[in-house]
Order: sequence, then structure tokens, then C-alpha cells
Amino acid sequence: MTSTNHSSTVITGIGELTTVDPDHRVLQDAAVAIEDGRIAWIGPTRRAPAADVRWDAGGRAVLPGWVDSHTHLVFAGDRGAEFEARMAGESYSAGGIGVTMAATRAADDAELARLLAARVAEARAGGTTFLETKTGYGLSVDEEVRHARLASEAADVVTFLGAHLVPPGAEADEYLDQVCGPMLQAVKDHVQWADVFCERGAFDEDASRRVLLACREAGLGLRVHGNQLGPGPGVRLAVELGAASVDHVNHLEDADVEALAGSSTVATCLPACDLSTRQPLAPGRRLLDAGAEIALASNCNPGTSYTTAMGFCVATAVLQMKLSLHEAVRAATMGGAQALRVAEEVGSVELGKRADLQVLDAPAAIHLAYRPGMPLTHTVFKDGRPDA
Amino acid sequence: MTSTNHSSTVITGIGELTTVDPDHRVLQDAAVAIEDGRIAWIGPTRRAPAADVRWDAGGRAVLPGWVDSHTHLVFAGDRGAEFEARMAGESYSAGGIGVTMAATRAADDAELARLLAARVAEARAGGTTFLETKTGYGLSVDEEVRHARLASEAADVVTFLGAHLVPPGAEADEYLDQVCGPMLQAVKDHVQWADVFCERGAFDEDASRRVLLACREAGLGLRVHGNQLGPGPGVRLAVELGAASVDHVNHLEDADVEALAGSSTVATCLPACDLSTRQPLAPGRRLLDAGAEIALASNCNPGTSYTTAMGFCVATAVLQMKLSLHEAVRAATMGGAQALRVAEEVGSVELGKRADLQVLDAPAAIHLAYRPGMPLTHTVFKDGRPDA
Ligand SMILES: [Zn+2]
Ligand SMILES: [Zn+2]
Repeated sequence: MTSTNHSSTVITGIGELTTVDPDHRVLQDAAVAIEDGRIAWIGPTRRAPAADVRWDAGGRAVLPGWVDSHTHLVFAGDRGAEFEARMAGESYSAGGIGVTMAATRAADDAELARLLAARVAEARAGGTTFLETKTGYGLSVDEEVRHARLASEAADVVTFLGAHLVPPGAEADEYLDQVCGPMLQAVKDHVQWADVFCERGAFDEDASRRVLLACREAGLGLRVHGNQLGPGPGVRLAVELGAASVDHVNHLEDADVEALAGSSTVATCLPACDLSTRQPLAPGRRLLDAGAEIALASNCNPGTSYTTAMGFCVATAVLQMKLSLHEAVRAATMGGAQALRVAEEVGSVELGKRADLQVLDAPAAIHLAYRPGMPLTHTVFKDGRPDA
Repeated sequence: MTSTNHSSTVITGIGELTTVDPDHRVLQDAAVAIEDGRIAWIGPTRRAPAADVRWDAGGRAVLPGWVDSHTHLVFAGDRGAEFEARMAGESYSAGGIGVTMAATRAADDAELARLLAARVAEARAGGTTFLETKTGYGLSVDEEVRHARLASEAADVVTFLGAHLVPPGAEADEYLDQVCGPMLQAVKDHVQWADVFCERGAFDEDASRRVLLACREAGLGLRVHGNQLGPGPGVRLAVELGAASVDHVNHLEDADVEALAGSSTVATCLPACDLSTRQPLAPGRRLLDAGAEIALASNCNPGTSYTTAMGFCVATAVLQMKLSLHEAVRAATMGGAQALRVAEEVGSVELGKRADLQVLDAPAAIHLAYRPGMPLTHTVFKDGRPDA
């Protein structure tokens, strides 16, 4: 491990290098040198420095690895039958988060760890090099702690989402006391972030504020699920409390957009979820035009978005949300990094940052949207090392 | 080759077998026996017959291979920069079919054959086992013949689309004389079908009828590009002449839908093209509700739909065109087979048909839409033989 880390690599013959740096540089016939897992040099191939390993990109496009800032990967079971019935316009009485809660509680540590590792590997195979995941299918102290611990062994950062919903049979106020008290205290050493599902039918504004303030007090950064199913207080609350991100943002009033534009809170759009629930796509174009920072994330979960395909999210953003390629790629890399407050480390190809890169089976990054549905990931570098 | 064809194979452990047969049977824990490249037996795994080769599907879903009834694969160059500018809302003066025509004419036979083979291989890797492709970037007698000949060596069936547009510099009436005369005579032995781009700016109703009648007279089956950019005569003309398919069908009046519903002409929807041009998706739901037969195809071409990902088309149909999974899968298999009049041979898992199958990395076919953007093709069987 140590010797591998201390080796140097140079990637040459990059047909198009999308840096996502502050100058939006896109370089042709470029090379990137990597030392100790970090980017040490960027320039033309003809001036590439010597290195222990020389890796030829063969004219392919290279861009930063995806930063997926919103997933729910700690679950067992799938809900394909429920999804199929919904798509066929049929009702399906046995569905919902409770189904996943029960299946996940029933899975032992080894099984959950195996499922988590498989999902992280799928994401990596699709170009994701930095990944957040959440608890939220445990919904009891013991289970939330177990999920947080397992998640912390698989993902780059973990978010505590005890306030996903009030579990079946529980009383709302009592559950809230638990979330803000013993559950928070038990999970906080395993997680970096806290999140709340601030939506009609889940947690209202007062309950959401209480959860977020308790979690902030415990030293966690804040995120919010908001404005997914209708207009609501989620965005305003996220901005008021300085949350790093508010996610979903499908139903925005002008005041919400203005608040986001004047804040450091990232608006995270989840197009695969919007499509999977046949809801209108989040207004990414409107948010960008107003000056807000946006991210694209997968929201991978078994109920409303069972995919980690960030390339699909980027294609959808270009084809259907009217983002340019550059805007969509930025949202899926730097946008996610800013939403997780890790933009000093990942999200762009810049000197000193982690060498987290993806090589496409295409000469240019536009192929991500130009060739929708095609599997374009050729090789993924994480900390300077290519996948096998 | 002969000995391979005369071997028998049995695929066991199929978690879910989607037959797309007339009874819409979906079987659990199924097996399929194959003899001489054709389906010889379908039943439960526990009763599977002996065979030379036993192939375990490991609980995965199996369905018929995709039948892609509409592609334009004979081309050189790509138009990624033009696409990127269009998506960014910028004008791009150097674009259009003329660019592809020039690049394709400039490519020699070996280069075109290599590009064609690579595209067919990409389609196969995504589950497509039967594929139509068209001429139409040659637009001179010599080039159309060359493209038809190369296409016939790569695709299952070939369509003559000399009437794609009037090439730059040519006079419309003179070009039409050429298409209906020497060009048709020169290509007809290499192709099975004829097509015309019946649209404002390409060929009007009279010109389209003239092309189609000449081609029918020469023994070719008929297809029509119609009603893509606005209402028009394409659908009515296709039904009037008994065309096997009319493709695009984005802008339909009630009379068009009724005509299709009362005919044997298949309405072929091209969702990847609709998305890539930011046009409204074709009204697949409305067509099905009226009783029309529909197909889903990729329309792979470098200008408006550079993808052969039929799985993406199926996912889009379910998520955005309001088709059920069953309807979408049927349209992408039997629908395409009917649009190509090969439904006796391919398009479903039925006794006596070709053993053209796809195995998904998923327990059920619904995952095609439930997990959008994930690469789900595990193994593809063509004529009973698995890919390497
Ligand atoms: Zn979520
Ligand atoms: Zn076409």
C-alpha cells in the first residue's frame, strides 16, 4: 500500500481533458502527472514528465470522477414489483419505506456490508470516485447506529437521516425526542452530516428545525431533503441554518430561488429520482440563471431512484434540463464536492487535489449526452490508481 | 460453424423469463432448450432436458434480444461539437447531414466496414440481436450502392434511403429522377426495404409517393420517415401504400392515429432521437390506447440520435412515455420484428424461433426501467450462441 502510494504515474494521450477548474479549462492532447495519489502536473503530452508508470489514454476524454453527494445505499431487498406496478398505473398496497426498513433490519451485518460494497463498486464502475451515503432505513437507535457504522466502512462520508420518517407504530413526538437525543448521541461518531426529510407527511418546519439544531449542536454539518413533492419550508430552512445543501428542490417559489442564489447552500437536483417518480425535473436551468450553485446526484435508493448512474444524470440534465455539457459536468463533480464541503480535495483536475479521474470510451465529454445510454466508462482512477 | 450450429444448449436457472409470446407469459425459474440455433423447448428448470451445453443463468432475467428496426449506421465522422453547441443554445453553422455525407464519401471501404462492425458490436453488447440499417449518406448512385453493399455485410436487413434529402448542389427533380431510376436499379439487389424522408424541407407528399411506388415496383418493402418535425402527410401515405412502418410519428392528428390503428403499418417511436433533439416524445401511449401497433427503435445516427442503446429507449418509454414495462419490452422486440416483417423468426421466445436472447444482470426485466443508466446486459445469445 505504502509503496503504491508513493509511486508516480503519468497519464498521456488524453484527447480532451475537462478540468472543471475555475477557468473551465478544456485541454486537447493533454497529460496529467500524479504523485502520492495527487495531481502534480497538468500539461501537453509532449512535455509530460517521466514517472514510474506511464498510462496512455489513447486519445480518450478524461474528466474528474463523479462526486455523488446524495445516496441511500444501506438497504436490503429491492422494490421492483412496486415500481413496475406504479409504472403500469396500478396501485400497490405493500409498498413504501416500511418495506425497506423491515428488510434492512432483517439483514445481518455481513449481508448489509456485502450489499453496500456491491453498490459502491457499481457506482465506481460508472465513474463515481467520491460518494456520500445516508442512514434512514434503521429508524431505531440500535439500527441507525449499525447502519451508520457499516456505511462509514463503505462510503467516503456518511449522513445521519434518522429523521427520514416516523417509523410505523411510533408516536411522532416521542420519535423526534429519540432522534434528537439518544439516537443522535449514538450515531454522531460514525457520521459527518445530518439530514431531515422536510416534507408534508414527513417532518414539518418546526420538527425539521429541531432536528437540525440538535445535530448542529452535536457537531454535524447540515443537509435537507426539501421541496420535493410540493412548495414548502425546506429551502428557506436550509438557507437560514447555513446547510451545505438542500436536495430535490422540485417545487420552488421565486423567494426560494433568490434565497439559494444569495447563499452558500447548494441546490442538489436528483433527475433520476424525478424521472423514476414521473415528477417534473428539478429546475436546474432556473437555479443556474439566478446564480445559485447546483449539484447533480443520483439519490440511489430502492423506492424512488435505484441507480448510481451519474452519467445518466448528466445526460438527462443536458437533454432535458437544458444545461450545457459544461454546466452538467460541473454540477456532477465540483457541485457535489461543494455540497459536501470537500471541494478543496476533489471535484476537479487541479494541482494538489486527489487524482480521482474517469477515462471515457469517447474522444470528448460531450459523448456523455450525445450517446445516451451507451456504457462509456473506460477506466476509473481513484487516488491515482486505475481500477483493475 | 456447422458443428456448432448442430449442437444443443439448455439455459437453466432463469429467474424470470419474459417470452413476449401472444399470451404475454412471464415464467419464474425457467429453462430454455436450443437446438440448431432455434428454441426447441421452454419449461421449468427442474424439467430441463439434457443438452451438449448447459448454461446457468444464475437467477437472472432473460428476455428476447432487442430488434432495432431503425438505424443509420453507415457513416464516418461524428458531430459531437455540433451537438454540444445545440445543447448550449448556440448556433453552429457547419452542421447538418451534408457534413456526414462528405465524411462518409471520403472514407474508404475498409474504414466504413470497420466503423459499421464496431457499431453493430456495440449494439450487440447492449442486447440487440436483430438490426436494420439504412443507406442515405451516399446520395449519389455510386455511393449509395457502396453503402448498401457494406451495410448488407454488417446488418440483418438493409433499407435504401436515397431519398434522405436532396444533396447540396443538386436540383430536386433531377435528383428524384436519379433515385427512382438508376440509383434504385443499382442498389435493389443489396437491400430489402425502401424509405423516404417525408417532411417539410426534405420530400413532399408527391415526391415521397413517387419514390415509394418506384421502389415497390422494384420489389422492395416500404417504410417512411414521417411526422417528425410537424404534422404532415407521412403517416397517411404510409398507411395508404401499406408500408410496414412509419417512423418518428411525433406530430399526429386524430386521423393519423385512427389510420394507424386500422392498418398493419407499425408506428415506430424513436425516443432517443426525440430527447437528443429536445423534441416532445412520440405519443406511444396514445397510439397503444387507440389500438395501433408500435415499435421502439434507436434511430442511431450521428446527427440526432447517436446511440444504439435499446435499453435506454425502453427505460425512457416506461419513465416518460407512460408505457408499462411489458408494453415497452414488447415494442422493442416483437414491435420491431413486426415493423421489419420478421416476426415469424425473431422478437419473442417461442418454439421454432431463433434463439436470440439477452440475459440481464438483474432478477427481473423491470430493472431496465427501475435502474436507469445502469449497464444491465450480462450475456447475449445470437442463434443460440452466447457472446464471448
Ligand atoms: Zn434522498
Ligand atoms: Zn432515421
